[in-house]
Amino acid sequence: MANDDPCPVFFLSDSTGITAETLGNTLLSQFPTMEFDRTTIPFILNVEQAQAVVDLVDGLVAEGKKPIVFSTAVTSDIRHTLGTCQATLIDLLGTYLGQLETTLATPASNEPGRAHGLGNAARYQSRMTAVEYAMEHDDGQSLRALEKAQLILVAPSRCGKTPTTMYLALQHGIFAANFPLVDEDFEREGLPKPLQPFVDKCFGLTTNPLRLSQVRTQRREGSPYASLRQCGFELRSAERLYASHGIPFLNSASMSVEEMSATILQQMHLKR
Amino acid sequence: MANDDPCPVFFLSDSTGITAETLGNTLLSQFPTMEFDRTTIPFILNVEQAQAVVDLVDGLVAEGKKPIVFSTAVTSDIRHTLGTCQATLIDLLGTYLGQLETTLATPASNEPGRAHGLGNAARYQSRMTAVEYAMEHDDGQSLRALEKAQLILVAPSRCGKTPTTMYLALQHGIFAANFPLVDEDFEREGLPKPLQPFVDKCFGLTTNPLRLSQVRTQRREGSPYASLRQCGFELRSAERLYASHGIPFLNSASMSVEEMSATILQQMHLKR
Repeated sequence: MANDDPCPVFFLSDSTGITAETLGNTLLSQFPTMEFDRTTIPFILNVEQAQAVVDLVDGLVAEGKKPIVFSTAVTSDIRHTLGTCQATLIDLLGTYLGQLETTLATPASNEPGRAHGLGNAARYQSRMTAVEYAMEHDDGQSLRALEKAQLILVAPSRCGKTPTTMYLALQHGIFAANFPLVDEDFEREGLPKPLQPFVDKCFGLTTNPLRLSQVRTQRREGSPYASLRQCGFELRSAERLYASHGIPFLNSASMSVEEMSATILQQMHLKR
Repeated sequence: MANDDPCPVFFLSDSTGITAETLGNTLLSQFPTMEFDRTTIPFILNVEQAQAVVDLVDGLVAEGKKPIVFSTAVTSDIRHTLGTCQATLIDLLGTYLGQLETTLATPASNEPGRAHGLGNAARYQSRMTAVEYAMEHDDGQSLRALEKAQLILVAPSRCGKTPTTMYLALQHGIFAANFPLVDEDFEREGLPKPLQPFVDKCFGLTTNPLRLSQVRTQRREGSPYASLRQCGFELRSAERLYASHGIPFLNSASMSVEEMSATILQQMHLKR
């Protein structure tokens, strides 16, 4: 294999493949100089399908490549078949289940699809209701039932409110609204009126003026809205507003939605 | 410890904790009869913080409990400190990095926060743009730039279009629109006009009439919209429409958004 060929990587599962991808990508992110050619094969439901995957992987080995396989298959005959492949195999359940069975003094169920299935119906339903709530309360569209919010994300336009709200709703079932700060909010004293009863639920976002100007330029090039001057004004005003009301805030410029969400959950003491 | 006390579980990380939670919850889902008391502690940034966590966990051990710790800490002194705790410790990176270093003939970077940080800026940006696209194209709100969609989810109201679209956008950066089927679409022959040029991008959802009626009843109790008769009519009509245009579809009644998304990606050959 030429050293600069991307390394073939497989995420295999008898269910969605989400855990295999998450686990695998976390490990691969520790090798930032390497290139990987990723393939996810979910829903491997029987030994024949598993054998076809093994043949595919072993074909690459025969070509001199060094594939890496992350597997979260649970069903024992499928796991056994995948285990015969000649690649570097990282078998999540195989590695740890025995240890957990000992600690818990309970045998594992060995049924696939439990991690990202409907699982706890009440918890699943609350995530779906949270998505609906977040859609309805995006960008201050509705102020109805704001008292039901566990969190209100506050920020000038284009600081990352919407994707962060969606992530918190979808992944964690958090009832999150978001509310845009606009010029008139900065001209008045105090918090925007709809937020006043809920200051304890507010969390602010800010970013860097240059970055905000770039993001807004993609939307409305050359507009006053996208100007560095306007962006700087809004961000300074927003940060002053947060500080004067004791609203915690973070700078979204160099953070992913995942990092922002984890930070917000932690700082606001929200149960995941 | 009384056997029916929930088992304390910790997800520890020097970054967001997402991988620790995903890995841990997948493993714990193999013990469906057990109860767990879960705590996520992200952003453990130094040895002092790590030691405080160890003290917390060891305090539980001293009380006779058997905590389980899932850790994805990367930084070696933090990992080392966490490794001194007396609980059952599942250390993802410790387990597998050596094996990967050998296969890849490259040392791991040992820098935290790579998995769920901004990472590849272009890929991250495309996910955020996909969320924006999904918001704009939710429920047929906008038909602008429908040709940019990689996927158009089609279904009667309340079959799960919105959360599935959001999940595909946020997690996988898929440009997904969704389009509601209503009575007038069933009265006419053929596909709704806006969809006609894009039949290859369409994927249908259906559900069970009883389940749909229950979901709609939560929204508008006693309405014709929520009646079992109307729900049955819409679902039968939608399924007939899918079949007559060769639109693949699935039944969302017993599937999670994660399962639906994985199925759709696979069937539509969309790159994750």
